[in-house]
Amino acid sequence: MKLEKLVGDRFKERPSDCQIDSHALMIRGGYMKYMANGIFSSYMPLKRITRKIEQIIREEMDAIDGQEVSFPVVMPASLWQESGRYESVGAELLRFSDRGKQPMLLGMTHEEASVHLVREYANSYTKYPFMIYQIQTKFRDEARPRGGLIRVREFTMKDAYSFHTSQEDLEEYYYRCHKAYERIYARAGIPEVISVASDSGMMGGSVSHEFMLLTPVGEDSIAICPHCGYRANMEAAESIIRNERDAESLPLTEVSTPDCHTIEEVCGLLKTAPEKSCKAVVFQRNTDDSYIVLFIRGDLDVNETKLTNHLGCAIHPAVITEDCGLAAGFIGPVGLNAKATVLYDKSLENTNNLVCGANKEGYHFTGLDISRDVGEAEYRDFAKIIEGGICPECGDSSVTISRGIEVGNIFQLGTKYTKSMNMTYLDKDGNVQIPIMGCYGIGVGRLAASVCEAHHDDYGPIWPMAIAPWQVHICAVRSDDEKVKAAADKLYGDLQAAGVEVIYDDRNVRAGVMFSDADLLGVPLRVVVSPRNLEEGIYELSSRDKSISEKITPEKAVERLRELIAEMTALPKE
Amino acid sequence: MKLEKLVGDRFKERPSDCQIDSHALMIRGGYMKYMANGIFSSYMPLKRITRKIEQIIREEMDAIDGQEVSFPVVMPASLWQESGRYESVGAELLRFSDRGKQPMLLGMTHEEASVHLVREYANSYTKYPFMIYQIQTKFRDEARPRGGLIRVREFTMKDAYSFHTSQEDLEEYYYRCHKAYERIYARAGIPEVISVASDSGMMGGSVSHEFMLLTPVGEDSIAICPHCGYRANMEAAESIIRNERDAESLPLTEVSTPDCHTIEEVCGLLKTAPEKSCKAVVFQRNTDDSYIVLFIRGDLDVNETKLTNHLGCAIHPAVITEDCGLAAGFIGPVGLNAKATVLYDKSLENTNNLVCGANKEGYHFTGLDISRDVGEAEYRDFAKIIEGGICPECGDSSVTISRGIEVGNIFQLGTKYTKSMNMTYLDKDGNVQIPIMGCYGIGVGRLAASVCEAHHDDYGPIWPMAIAPWQVHICAVRSDDEKVKAAADKLYGDLQAAGVEVIYDDRNVRAGVMFSDADLLGVPLRVVVSPRNLEEGIYELSSRDKSISEKITPEKAVERLRELIAEMTALPKE
Repeated sequence: MKLEKLVGDRFKERPSDCQIDSHALMIRGGYMKYMANGIFSSYMPLKRITRKIEQIIREEMDAIDGQEVSFPVVMPASLWQESGRYESVGAELLRFSDRGKQPMLLGMTHEEASVHLVREYANSYTKYPFMIYQIQTKFRDEARPRGGLIRVREFTMKDAYSFHTSQEDLEEYYYRCHKAYERIYARAGIPEVISVASDSGMMGGSVSHEFMLLTPVGEDSIAICPHCGYRANMEAAESIIRNERDAESLPLTEVSTPDCHTIEEVCGLLKTAPEKSCKAVVFQRNTDDSYIVLFIRGDLDVNETKLTNHLGCAIHPAVITEDCGLAAGFIGPVGLNAKATVLYDKSLENTNNLVCGANKEGYHFTGLDISRDVGEAEYRDFAKIIEGGICPECGDSSVTISRGIEVGNIFQLGTKYTKSMNMTYLDKDGNVQIPIMGCYGIGVGRLAASVCEAHHDDYGPIWPMAIAPWQVHICAVRSDDEKVKAAADKLYGDLQAAGVEVIYDDRNVRAGVMFSDADLLGVPLRVVVSPRNLEEGIYELSSRDKSISEKITPEKAVERLRELIAEMTALPKE
Repeated sequence: MKLEKLVGDRFKERPSDCQIDSHALMIRGGYMKYMANGIFSSYMPLKRITRKIEQIIREEMDAIDGQEVSFPVVMPASLWQESGRYESVGAELLRFSDRGKQPMLLGMTHEEASVHLVREYANSYTKYPFMIYQIQTKFRDEARPRGGLIRVREFTMKDAYSFHTSQEDLEEYYYRCHKAYERIYARAGIPEVISVASDSGMMGGSVSHEFMLLTPVGEDSIAICPHCGYRANMEAAESIIRNERDAESLPLTEVSTPDCHTIEEVCGLLKTAPEKSCKAVVFQRNTDDSYIVLFIRGDLDVNETKLTNHLGCAIHPAVITEDCGLAAGFIGPVGLNAKATVLYDKSLENTNNLVCGANKEGYHFTGLDISRDVGEAEYRDFAKIIEGGICPECGDSSVTISRGIEVGNIFQLGTKYTKSMNMTYLDKDGNVQIPIMGCYGIGVGRLAASVCEAHHDDYGPIWPMAIAPWQVHICAVRSDDEKVKAAADKLYGDLQAAGVEVIYDDRNVRAGVMFSDADLLGVPLRVVVSPRNLEEGIYELSSRDKSISEKITPEKAVERLRELIAEMTALPKE
């Protein structure tokens, strides 16, 4: 490919609407173009990268006996009504009607479609286990797309579905798939991706893992215990609090706390540590706007995922109205007289001498003894795990919180879809059974962007060889010099003949322009042919990551480049 | 791949809802599954076929300097409003709103998206020419999907867009693309595909061609002149009629024709040849239901495409109401007193002594002299070309009409999209110019189905080697025989190691079941390992098309199969 004819603009200025580097570099480098909120077109360099990523994924899925199939993008609503998700999933599921007024939707995931494809076929235990997958366009009507390819509305995803006759068989396959994912990330150039326990969310099922690339620009928070290796998405991480109880409980006493509307203000006024307070956090159900009052220790935050999972429905922060019976800023567990679901976080269990709201404008209580004053109550984990918190695995107070980009996920779905969609098989003894499912996803574009986040400098991406748009970038500096042009042309032809993927810049432009374009394209190996080099009888060979810089003779050039390409494509030994 | 684990059912009975063989065989063979009207999922065999077709297309597009990109499936309405197609395209364009109430649509073609991607980039003549293409999911909300993959709503299509600075340059590229298409069909196993001149329809532009696989089950009618080689889609073929005029014009005379409502009945009653009659065909505009009365010679049919192109809007057959002023069955050009657009086909120009309606229930005229009785009128070609009609190219009365499936199309678009979407460039002299476009489409699934139509027998498809789901199919007959199992296992392993794509049937089932499954999968080469063969020290090798049937020794098996695969993949010499 000649760079001169490569469609797409490259430029220096960081676009003001790009928050993260991968987004900025992919716009600056002519990789993609914005069309609508969360919707992009791809130019050739990005298309080549994503096709290579897809091929790596395909090979690894085939290696674990996956069968590539394809499901429709547009599906009838009736299919999702079978599983119940047509109603349960929010506005991110794009629903519409076709010309015949039939309700349809755009696929954001394909559990229903996978069950639809195999439920007649897989009617006997002899057909199991099997896995089917596709690599395909999906649409998820995100409220807030952001970060370029990190969170978009239209994206390409590999989604795989496995079917089993026992939980053990699912777990064994789940483990194989976990290993396959590790190989995929390693081959794509980010072996540092870790897996973390995750919340299964709208997918259902119990056990699930996310694969995370740790980076400060990540959207997810991950709790990691350096002591025992425990790793979990903050949404899923159990918060463990060792509650301490004073030897003696003080009496419950009403105190005036005018103009104190936050727990911090109250604790400041009363000179109490936030750990000795009980704060109320109020939500409303999305369905009917009914109130939920959650009491939690003053220094902790609510993990909304845990709360949503407990309630079984979506929620939003409450709007507290005059007539709802809640005294905003002064809500407490004693004498609360409002129509609301009241919940208690484990951090309050068996605690005493706390400050809390008195359910009266301008007043708090001191001396709350939760068991004495509230009576019978159920305490559950609704809290966010904190930096320095207790590891749920080893009990060490060593938890750290890191940011990460989710680059894949795997779920043990159980029978959620097979049961609701009436998929059954006959076991060895002729009994009707319900198959158990797993599902496994990787977003292709997000993976490309994540690799860019992990491997770039100020001047552009540094693509790993296995997914780079091209393998070698030739710069013919001073292509108006006949000798330079002839030598570079020959090298270009020889490399192409040797099966090397080359991009060739023979424009008559300044070397600086050439090099900054090459930096933006991020091709791993670069060869500079220039009048000065030719005088020396050599070409300059360097790598985009600066680890290689050598002079090669024209005779040895192709051989040396092929050698380096092979080395740089190879996986690190396990 | 072991057949035992291949997901999908195969069965003998032809499904009653399948009109054409490719559809029936693809359902019977476990290639695809119906999900909704015109929407299918694909199983592994079809996915492998379409991926191979895609790769052939990709290679041929790359060979003519195409750059693979990707456009979104979901696009904002605003983009199609720029070109005017948001309003002009009918209900096959699926329109909907996203969660933010923004009007969106599902891409059925991507002229607008291609201009959007390049219009800032291609601002100078130096950037031209270039071609970008994608292979991607599209949705076209067809009123009547049919024929399995022949006419669906969701489909995968390769669509390419070229940009030029002169008509000559476009024509040169158009010709290159035409050649590339011929190579694609030849490589996919249907070199017999022909190109025919076509109507540009909603795409705009003047010159366009369709690539047609001639087959009686085709949806399109194609006019072919065996004398000079002229070929055109009937929609686009000019109808040439040599009008004959009697020496003497009879007077216009009203005659009673009670109960005669068709031109055939009238001609029968009056003992006139239909060629000596003038019939009225009535349509209504889709936009406002206004009437169009088209007069044409009684023996000819109206080509609605020509009429639509002339009117510049969609039409439908008229519903004639009491108060519209039209006397259904008795409409004629003399004394027509209705609010309607009146048009005349060329077949009537300068004719006389015709029978026509008298615009009065129960009466016709005889002796119509169109020039004398109608006066000034414009005559245009609105007729369908007929079998035995006059060739517009050589003038011979030798036109034949064949049926065909359209497996690709190419268009010279001109400036329809670049002009409406304000894409310009500066030419050598610094003048602002509008680029000229071409576009080039191939439906991947329809191509697969067409190959199946062209190559199948009663028992299944006969896939050409280059696109077959696998290259070799091993049948281990009596796999419960240890020797058979061992020999077949070894052959399976050896072939895989040699890079051959093998499907291996080692089920313990009757030979008849094995062979009928193999017929349905249509793999080009089959090897049978059986106790009887092993006694002879050979395997039976045959081809699905029955042209090859030989005995091979286990030692030579891999070598012979590889040889045959290479031969069968090779293109016939040009």
